[in-house]
Amino acid sequence: MISHLTARVWTDDLSDRVGERVQLKGWLHRLRRLAGVSFLIIRDARGTAQVVVQDPELVERLARLQNESVLGIAGVVVAEPQAPGGVEIHDPAVTVISEADEAPPFDLYRPVIKAQLPTILDNAPVALRHPRRRAYFAISAASMAGFRSGLHDLGFTEIQTPKIVGSATESGATTFALDYFGKTAYLAQSPQFYKQVMVGVFERVYEVGPVFRAEPHDTARHINEYVSLDAEVGFIENEYTVMAVLTDTIASMLAAVERDAAGALAVLRLELPKVPQPIPDVHFLDAQAMITAATGEDLSNEPDLSPANERWLGEWAKREHGSDFLFVRGFPMSKRPFYTHPDPERPGFAAGFDLLFRGMELVTGGQRLHRYQDYVDALVSRGEDPENYAAYLMAFKHGMPPHGGFAIGLERWVAQLVDASNVRETTLFPRDLNRLSP
Amino acid sequence: MISHLTARVWTDDLSDRVGERVQLKGWLHRLRRLAGVSFLIIRDARGTAQVVVQDPELVERLARLQNESVLGIAGVVVAEPQAPGGVEIHDPAVTVISEADEAPPFDLYRPVIKAQLPTILDNAPVALRHPRRRAYFAISAASMAGFRSGLHDLGFTEIQTPKIVGSATESGATTFALDYFGKTAYLAQSPQFYKQVMVGVFERVYEVGPVFRAEPHDTARHINEYVSLDAEVGFIENEYTVMAVLTDTIASMLAAVERDAAGALAVLRLELPKVPQPIPDVHFLDAQAMITAATGEDLSNEPDLSPANERWLGEWAKREHGSDFLFVRGFPMSKRPFYTHPDPERPGFAAGFDLLFRGMELVTGGQRLHRYQDYVDALVSRGEDPENYAAYLMAFKHGMPPHGGFAIGLERWVAQLVDASNVRETTLFPRDLNRLSP
Repeated sequence: MISHLTARVWTDDLSDRVGERVQLKGWLHRLRRLAGVSFLIIRDARGTAQVVVQDPELVERLARLQNESVLGIAGVVVAEPQAPGGVEIHDPAVTVISEADEAPPFDLYRPVIKAQLPTILDNAPVALRHPRRRAYFAISAASMAGFRSGLHDLGFTEIQTPKIVGSATESGATTFALDYFGKTAYLAQSPQFYKQVMVGVFERVYEVGPVFRAEPHDTARHINEYVSLDAEVGFIENEYTVMAVLTDTIASMLAAVERDAAGALAVLRLELPKVPQPIPDVHFLDAQAMITAATGEDLSNEPDLSPANERWLGEWAKREHGSDFLFVRGFPMSKRPFYTHPDPERPGFAAGFDLLFRGMELVTGGQRLHRYQDYVDALVSRGEDPENYAAYLMAFKHGMPPHGGFAIGLERWVAQLVDASNVRETTLFPRDLNRLSP
Repeated sequence: MISHLTARVWTDDLSDRVGERVQLKGWLHRLRRLAGVSFLIIRDARGTAQVVVQDPELVERLARLQNESVLGIAGVVVAEPQAPGGVEIHDPAVTVISEADEAPPFDLYRPVIKAQLPTILDNAPVALRHPRRRAYFAISAASMAGFRSGLHDLGFTEIQTPKIVGSATESGATTFALDYFGKTAYLAQSPQFYKQVMVGVFERVYEVGPVFRAEPHDTARHINEYVSLDAEVGFIENEYTVMAVLTDTIASMLAAVERDAAGALAVLRLELPKVPQPIPDVHFLDAQAMITAATGEDLSNEPDLSPANERWLGEWAKREHGSDFLFVRGFPMSKRPFYTHPDPERPGFAAGFDLLFRGMELVTGGQRLHRYQDYVDALVSRGEDPENYAAYLMAFKHGMPPHGGFAIGLERWVAQLVDASNVRETTLFPRDLNRLSP
């Protein structure tokens, strides 16, 4: 019965089938009626194909169909250098599999959708069929596959941890609360605690899953639910071990995009960045000093980098190192969460990093504390009661190795890769302050 | 810097290193002090190794450590047929990497943890380190990998859809509600609507992610958050196309477990089931008739199978077909959700199926409606307002092919595979009526 799926030919395989009569299936992308001949463009999951229609009766029948009607087409593949893809279909027999009830809210056959982003998002079930928009999510799928395969090859095990949690993960006003059988529960803002605990089990773990942030940001780079690509690794030397794992992981993600999403790259005319080995790194204080020297901006009391600072550093990395990627190490401890391991040589600064990709923060990571007493001290010094973290701290009471990890925001990664100006463009069905549907 | 991770040798690679001095890292699993010699068992992510300790001073030093302290051990690999795995480590030099503060709540070195399930779950951060419990999750990870690779090979694309949704997915009193910036939102009880919509984009899609059920069940086979392995495929002939995809997918999952979780299978002394091609199938009415004939149970007004019915069918499939798997097709439409496609030959019954695995429902699937008007009719006949489903129905207004899909519960799959009596045993951190932590 699987033969029912494999009997049809994909549009991107047609050039291997010249001279054969094949079965295509897909959507009525467009009908172009010219004086002597008409062209039917059919779209399937892989691309489009041009079908030459000469029978006036068939042209009339097709003209009565709305675009996006679902068709089966049997026809002969003919080489035609003028046609898109170098082939076209002749002598078509057309079956209407499922008729569309209405015209699409915008033309899907134009190079880009002629509508504003909110309209595109409101109509996502149709808009996502546009070849360019679809290409973003083929890249997204390939990126996840590359994330997993890269880490699998380094001996990591996949985990799935709960998204409903009993207490706000990172001492947070930024979590969504829900009623859980009469108790208050929260949506996990990260799998941080669980992935650390699982280092005690598998040493090297990763998770791909949703995270939830109740921050009322209304910017082009924030959404309230996103996909986090998380990894955590035990028996590290220091944060450089984590940075090396991350570098390999990013390289594996790009290799997977090149391999699995070649069609999407062609649609977008996209060239992928190279990952330098190693990725250049700069200390937070040195980064600030460079920016101050270049721009005159006084950063002496700034414990973090602004988006403008990140952009400056992105340009600097490209200019000085030819790199789209830049590690910034050693952010002040005051701005990092309580589980952050301090740099042993400069205890006011973290043994951690951000990875900037083309001038935007893409990844945060670093070494974590691993001794129970260090956790108790860190929590108490922040005015927190360690009792509230008892289940998490149990792992550290019972022996944990030096470890660290990182988290990559999937939608932001794809947005930077395809140069989308808003992370909502690379999210299938984004959730933000004003958007809960579709 | 990745060399820091690769320099150490895993315990399950020791038999290839006889005669070499190697570096091991891991946890103090057990110290056995005998009269003339002591044995230190070290556990890493892959297994355990026996270290022979003869130096009385080192024995004393180790005896002062709590089990689960983290150690580095350099020593010589010696073949020893008496030792577990056929090798042991001699002349050890031991480094204490991180000392455990307390003894574990139960002995992790015993063949099974001597504690009741609630105690085991309360202490999950430590209990999951037990080799048998850890093995369940190695099987879980391999199953996910096999699910994805099987579907990838059939041309499926991975998607990630939102878990916060604006309306209860399947007309449900069984969803968790949350406050979303002043509006009421819900946790998705399945990605059903989104995966169908995405058939319009990629034709064949899958998702691995959490689903949330607010049902107040308190049984050994229900939890309130679980991992759903979802697939949906377009251009099917009927439900048999979906059953064929599912059969291939299950076979791919088992192949991945065999390949990636061989160590776990050895720990559990587990033999994997075979997947017949095709898996036998029986119509719901015929299944009921067989049960009635064999047991005398009157099922004439039963629109569903009870757990006892499922067990009977599981035994029947094993006896008659030598199969651990059995499809039951054609459940009454009244018990299936509104998007279910009726069997064209028997419209009161669904073009859908359950897959029983060893007498328990593991998968539900089938063909869905694909015409807009059919959805409107189905909703209206159930007393629902199609307006409430506008975003979902948009996909069907704009041309959708015949399609269908299925959903596998990951934790239940692993529980049946390893013969665990409670699905909580194969869930890292289960969520149920009474459990929100750890």
